[in-house]
Parts: sequence; C-alpha cells; structure tokens
Amino acid sequence: MRETIINVLEDIELSSPIFIEALPGIGHVGKLAADHIIDELKAVKFAELYSPSFPPQVLVDEDGIVEPMRNEFYYLRDAGEDERDYIILVGNTQGLSLEGQYEICGMILDFVEGYGARRIFTLGGLATGQPVEKARVYGAATSMELVEDLKEHGVIMRSADGGIIGASGLLLGMGRLRGMEGVYLMGETPGYFIDAEAARALLEVLLEMTKLEVDLEKLEERAEETKKMISKAQQMEQEMIERMNLKPGEEDLRYIG
Amino acid sequence: MRETIINVLEDIELSSPIFIEALPGIGHVGKLAADHIIDELKAVKFAELYSPSFPPQVLVDEDGIVEPMRNEFYYLRDAGEDERDYIILVGNTQGLSLEGQYEICGMILDFVEGYGARRIFTLGGLATGQPVEKARVYGAATSMELVEDLKEHGVIMRSADGGIIGASGLLLGMGRLRGMEGVYLMGETPGYFIDAEAARALLEVLLEMTKLEVDLEKLEERAEETKKMISKAQQMEQEMIERMNLKPGEEDLRYIG
Amino acid sequence: MRETIINVLEDIELSSPIFIEALPGIGHVGKLAADHIIDELKAVKFAELYSPSFPPQVLVDEDGIVEPMRNEFYYLRDAGEDERDYIILVGNTQGLSLEGQYEICGMILDFVEGYGARRIFTLGGLATGQPVEKARVYGAATSMELVEDLKEHGVIMRSADGGIIGASGLLLGMGRLRGMEGVYLMGETPGYFIDAEAARALLEVLLEMTKLEVDLEKLEERAEETKKMISKAQQMEQEMIERMNLKPGEEDLRYIG
Amino acid sequence: MRETIINVLEDIELSSPIFIEALPGIGHVGKLAADHIIDELKAVKFAELYSPSFPPQVLVDEDGIVEPMRNEFYYLRDAGEDERDYIILVGNTQGLSLEGQYEICGMILDFVEGYGARRIFTLGGLATGQPVEKARVYGAATSMELVEDLKEHGVIMRSADGGIIGASGLLLGMGRLRGMEGVYLMGETPGYFIDAEAARALLEVLLEMTKLEVDLEKLEERAEETKKMISKAQQMEQEMIERMNLKPGEEDLRYIG
Repeated sequence: MRETIINVLEDIELSSPIFIEALPGIGHVGKLAADHIIDELKAVKFAELYSPSFPPQVLVDEDGIVEPMRNEFYYLRDAGEDERDYIILVGNTQGLSLEGQYEICGMILDFVEGYGARRIFTLGGLATGQPVEKARVYGAATSMELVEDLKEHGVIMRSADGGIIGASGLLLGMGRLRGMEGVYLMGETPGYFIDAEAARALLEVLLEMTKLEVDLEKLEERAEETKKMISKAQQMEQEMIERMNLKPGEEDLRYIG
Repeated sequence: MRETIINVLEDIELSSPIFIEALPGIGHVGKLAADHIIDELKAVKFAELYSPSFPPQVLVDEDGIVEPMRNEFYYLRDAGEDERDYIILVGNTQGLSLEGQYEICGMILDFVEGYGARRIFTLGGLATGQPVEKARVYGAATSMELVEDLKEHGVIMRSADGGIIGASGLLLGMGRLRGMEGVYLMGETPGYFIDAEAARALLEVLLEMTKLEVDLEKLEERAEETKKMISKAQQMEQEMIERMNLKPGEEDLRYIG
Repeated sequence: MRETIINVLEDIELSSPIFIEALPGIGHVGKLAADHIIDELKAVKFAELYSPSFPPQVLVDEDGIVEPMRNEFYYLRDAGEDERDYIILVGNTQGLSLEGQYEICGMILDFVEGYGARRIFTLGGLATGQPVEKARVYGAATSMELVEDLKEHGVIMRSADGGIIGASGLLLGMGRLRGMEGVYLMGETPGYFIDAEAARALLEVLLEMTKLEVDLEKLEERAEETKKMISKAQQMEQEMIERMNLKPGEEDLRYIG
Repeated sequence: MRETIINVLEDIELSSPIFIEALPGIGHVGKLAADHIIDELKAVKFAELYSPSFPPQVLVDEDGIVEPMRNEFYYLRDAGEDERDYIILVGNTQGLSLEGQYEICGMILDFVEGYGARRIFTLGGLATGQPVEKARVYGAATSMELVEDLKEHGVIMRSADGGIIGASGLLLGMGRLRGMEGVYLMGETPGYFIDAEAARALLEVLLEMTKLEVDLEKLEERAEETKKMISKAQQMEQEMIERMNLKPGEEDLRYIG
C-alpha cells in the first residue's frame, strides 16, 4: 500500500449532506459523541479509509481478533427536524506523518464533496489538565457569520489562544480553501480519560445547531462500555494522538519531518 | 533505489502454500523458530526483498564481508503429514519508516498471493521483562474460528491488552482486508537475548497446527550458534526493532513521521 | 493534497522584479520588515502557496476564524527611486520536512523566475541570546561582488561562523545554481520576541540598497500590533522555526529524516 | 527540487575507473585523504550531485559566500604505476533521510557504472573515543578474496563487531548486489577533530593497494588548513554525520522514519 485508499462498501446518493468528523483525540470526546449519534440513529457504514500514514500496527479486540487501523464513513438520511442527510467520519486512528495528514484530509474532502457536502462540523476535546466542574464548549469557524452563530449557542471562541492541530483543524482549513464552511466544537475535559460529560456538553450544542434528535440518556453507559472495550493499545494510540493535539505553549515538535 | 523490490531467484509454482513470516523481533523468537524449520527441512531460498525503508547500512559478518539489509523468501514442498507447500519469510531487518512498513507488507502480500497463499502464520516473541519459568504461547487471529482453533492448541488470547506493531501485525491486518486468514503466535520470553525456550514453545504449537514434522533437538544448539553469529550491529538492529514492538503502555512514538 | 501548489490570484506581468523573501524566523525580524514594506507601499497579494510539508494544523485568529498555513506573494510596481518591480514573499510558516523545504524552495524560484526575477534578498534575524545595544546587520551573498556591496552598506559578513538553515539559505543556494544572485540580511536580535529595533536596522540597509522609500515611523507601533495579533499558536510555530534556525554549535538534529 | 540530480560539467570517457568514495564522516578521515589525492594529483571535477535529502541549508565560506550542500565527482586519468582511471566522490554532506540515502547511493552507483566502474573503495574513520597511539586501519569487503587482500596489506577485519552506517556501507552493499566489488577502509581516530594521522594511515594502505603515487608530506599542513577553513556550520554538519556513524552498541535511532 503506497497511497491512501477509500473502499466504498455501498453505493449511495445523498442530498447536500452535513459532514461530521470525529477522529480520535483529546479525552475521546469527539469520538464518543459521534459513536453515540451513529448508534442511536442507526447510521450505516458505507466506506472505509486506509492509509500508509496510519501507525504500522493492528489492534487486538477483546476476543483476540486483529483490527486494522482505519477510518470509517457512516451516513444518515432525512435525520432530525430538518430531515437532512449526514456523513459521519470516525475511526481508530489519525494519519501520523506530516504529508500523510494532508493527503488523508484532502482525500476525505474530495470524497464528501462528491456527495455534495458543503458544511463541516469537526468534533474534539479541549484538555484543561485539571478537574472541570461543568464542561464548557469551545469553538472556531471558517467565517464571521458562523462565529456569531456559535456564540448564539453559547460556544466560547478559542480566539487568539491557539491553533488546531490534526484532522479537525486541517479539514476546516483545507475545506475553507474549497469554499466549504465549517465549525470546530471542543468539549472541555480534564483529558486522559473517556469523558462522557464533555461529550454530553458537545452533543447538546451540536444537536441544537443541527436539530438532530438524539437521546443522551445512555451516554454515560456508553462511556463506561467504551472504557472497557478500549484495549491498552488503543489507549496508547489515544495518548499518541493527544500529544499531537497539545495545547499551544506546550512543546511539540513531533510533526517535524 | 526508490522503491521496494523483490528479486526472484528461482521460478517456482506452489500449491496453495501456507505463508509463515518471522522477521526480526523480540528475543529473536520468531526468527530462531523459522530458521530452524528452514534448516531442518532444507527449505530453498527463491526470492529476496530490498527496500529503501530498511536502515541505510550494511552488516559485517564474522569474516569481514558486508551483508546488505534484506528479507528472504524460502519455500518447502509437500512438507509434513499434510504434504502442504510453504513460503517462509525471514531476514535481518524490518522496514523502519511509517510508509515503508505499509509498502513492504503490501508487496509481500501481493507476492505470496501470486503463489496462491491464503493462510498466514506470523511468529514473534512477547517480552515479559522478567524471568519466564515455562514459556507460554500467546496469539491473535483474523477470525473467531481461528481464535477457537488457537485456544484448542493451548494458545492464550492476547485479548484487550495490546496491539501488534510491525510486520507481524500489519501482514495479518492487511491480509484480512484481502480475505486472507491468519494467526499471530508469540513465544513468551524475558526478551533481550536469543531465547531457545520461547522458540521451542512456539514451534510446538506451530508444528501441531501445521502437522509439519521438525526435530527440535538441535534448537538449543542453534540458539548458541545464532548468539555467536550475530554481530553487535545485528544486536543493535535487534534492539531497535524490539523497541518498535514495545508492549503497550510503554511509550513509543518512534514511528511518528 | 500531495504536492505543494501555488494559487495565482491575479495575472500580472512584472519587469525584472527583485525578489524579497521574509518567511517566519528568528524574532520575527524579517517578517516584520517585509510586512511593513507591504503595508506602507500598499503591495498587492497575487498568489498563495500551500504545501503538505507545512505543519498539519490551522491557526485561529482573534475573532475565532481558522487560518490555513500558507505563504503569500505580493508585488510592487515602479517602486522607489529606481522605479523597480518587486515580489515579496511572507507567510505564517515554513516547510518543516527535509524534502519539503527543497520542494517548496524549488517551486518558489520557478515561480519568481517566471516573472523575470534574477535578484534575491532574503531577510531574517540573528539571535544573540542576550540584550542587544544597537542592532547590527549581518549578511552573506552569492558572489564576491555582492559581498563587497554589502560591506559598503555596513553589513558584517557572517563568514566562517555558521550556515543558514531554512528557506532564507536554501533560496540563495538553489538560486545561485540557476545563476540568480542574492544576499541574506540578518538583523541582530536577542530573539524570542517581536523585535522592532532589529527590523529597523535591517530595513535601513535594505532601503539603502534597493532605493525603496518607506516611512519607518510606525514600525514600533506595528511591532506592538503584531505582538497582540500573534496567537500563542503562532508563537509556538515561531519557536519551532527558530529552533530550525539555531546558531551553529547548538545541537539541532531535527531535520534528520 | 523533488529528486536527487547529477549535473555533468564535462563529458568524459574513462576506462574501467576505480571508484573512491569519501563523503564526510568520523574525524574527516576519509575526506581529508580524498581531498589530498585530488589536490596532489590534480583530479578534475566533472559532475555535481544535489539532493532534497541533504540538510535544508547552505554553508557560508570564510568570505561570506553561500555554498550549497552537494557531492562532487572528480576524475583522474592514467594515474599511478598501473595507469588506471579513477572517479573520486567528495562533498560537504551526506543524505540524511532513510529513503534519501538509498536514492542517492543508487544514483551514484548508476552514474559511476555508466563510466565502467566495477571496483569501489569507500573511505572513513573508526572512532575509538580515546587517544590513538599509532592509527591502525580497519576494513571490510564484498568478497573473501578481497578480505584476504586487505589482510595482506595489514588491514584488520572489522568482523563481527559492527555494521557500517551511511554511504560508505550502502555503496558497498548495493554495489555488491550489482556484482561490483569493493572494500571499506577506516583509519582509527579518537574522532571529533580533523585527524591527519588517521588519514595518513588510511592513505598508505590505499596507495599500496592502488599503486597510486601521492606525496604525503603536506598532509599535516592540509589538516591544519582544513581545520581553519571548516566553518562551525560544517563542524555541526560533521557532528551530525558522525552521530549517524556511531559505533555499534551506542544508541542511535535517528534514521527511524
């Protein structure tokens, strides 16, 4: 395998889908939120992405079965009050090399644009490194109009205190260059554990903005389950990615060459 | 040399060969086991693989002769009670760069599939970091059926406590995506020395599963010999690869970009 | 995105333009100087460069809007006493990978040569690591004739005490191989803060050499403004690049593969 | 610049030239020896190699003139008692990335093979890390015959105590795969300074083996001169390469990915 590939499992047509990205990151916040939507609304997997820029390894699940590193695309049709279509991207890893991240994010945008997606939500966590009383939601966006929209939903702008490293940032930046619009939502979390509270705060904003209807009751339960299902290897993976999403000011030179 | 290449030394045909991989790793367990099969059953080398992702160096043997970094393919015909064909992969290194590992493993799978291989055994060691009284064998597999099969042979599933980094994991993961089935067998070893006992435990399971017949008497002797033959450079190489096969939980960011 | 691209925003023709490069570096000296010229003389942006060798991230501005990593080309027509044309290159990052730096600098030279540029100024800072009483200007050049020219303008040759790492060095070196001539000007700075004094010293030499006329009065003000506008992420970025421009003698192995 | 290139400066024909490589390494031993041959026998530069895998920088010479990173090919015609032709490769750097080293060495071999070269000498230093009373010469070779030849010239085989990292090793290993024969000669040196004595010991063996006639009187003088001419940047470069040529047993993971 010399290049990133996307295997399409089901040929579908979608109508101007909203694209939601939640690859692994700080405190599993985005992933937990997206997995919850996928399960509760029974989203359907229709494509898988594999890349030589993923870690050269496999995970082993609780049964002892090997699981390749991959990203997975799900779709939802006529969902929520607005009856919109959605593409949701989750996975067990992100690209790790400099050029790999750009290649993968470019392919993801090509792929979802092919289905008519013009709007992006990227989901993640913002690590505080200390206990969080009530998780707030931070954000950034591709336009002033969307910034105002975020503020109306109680999101705090992450203005002037940091960049966004990894797929959540790149997808917005590269999307913006193609005329796509998008927002980044981060649930505040101490980090370093599966944080259902941060995911709940994040989901509340996302559901309000998209008018998706998802029962949040089982979120805590899912967090517990996720905790059990996630092998140590995945936690290792997780920590690795968290380090790539360091808060600014911390030293991180890992993506240099 | 810009790309990985395979030089075929002998044109052969094989009938649905079983593919056994044992590139350098923890405690030389897999390599020792595979070298023993190759020598005892007089397997024949028929191809060599060279890659720009191998370390940019050569080894020097005991006579002072330079030896390029490479992987080597051997075959066996009508071997064991089942009279099966085999392809066995050994070598003095693994690919070291992120993308290199994927490129090399993809080429290896293309190559053995070309001979009709659909079943894979990957061999390695599981480092305990402390003395091992009686070496157990750990494993993982590409399907529930194979997991059950492994358990029947006394193999302990490595469930939920770790991923598999390097060629042994990638070949299974990438093979699974092509519909190939496979298992990973790890001999328990303290690590950091040539461990004949771990290789013996591993071989006992492998021979039982494949019905290959190999005399294990000279294994201890071979371990001693290997110890002498292996230059410090190879040990350096070995340590490097061991670090790439770290147990989960230990910090290893070396394959990041 | 697999390769560096240049998006041309405006089709222009220029007459033998002088090419000035001031990508981020030590103490923001070069960038501050070039931004000042661009603003005071109302240079016009006509092209943007994006690269998969830039950090895989976006910046967030003070409003909360994401800003992709990029380099930007501006032009000036009939500027200064000599009525010369200019191309000025600024940006929020440099390429970070080994091969990326070469690819990007090669593309930049191809691009400006296409407009007829044959002469290069690269601007940067020279970090002293301690307070600077009166900022001096250091330099290097592609020919003895230019070295003499620099000396006549009071520039101190950086002879025999160091190399030039990053775009400022590579553009001169690769340009020289194409028969382009160029000089490197470095304003002396303690480093690690936005240094208006170093930028002023640098600009005084540059304006003298090019006969450009730029009011330097607002430079201090601009430095203050820049300080405020630069997010922590950009500072992080900045520090990263500064480390790539280490003074010789300091240990820096970061660009090793 | 996306790929390694060789610029031919003079079209020449050579008759079965012997290829001598002496890129920067431990204690400048090989480089000093090769530079001495080039100057004393007035070898002529006929080609230059540039690579995106070289460090992204330029050096600055004592006059303040920038010097690109490059390797340089010289030739000698009808030299020594045997009236043989020679190609000598020197330079101010080696490739630094994993894949870059393989690409560059492959191109070098293609290039010299095009002139009919079938025999290689690679020159370097062997760092002892402590004072050396009388510099010995260590070696390795591509065949048993050459090993015997080396022993007859008093060279000590480096058997079983180490690999050869970098161009000197790769050129022999990759050359051997093409049926070229070669030897590696290392002058024993404390390392970390320009070592004329190690270069003299090395040259004595090389001259004996090739029957080249070179006056060694000015070697000490040249070492002094080299010391002065080499900028701190080059020393930095030198140290970097030395670390890539570490003695086995020392930890060096820098060429991983």
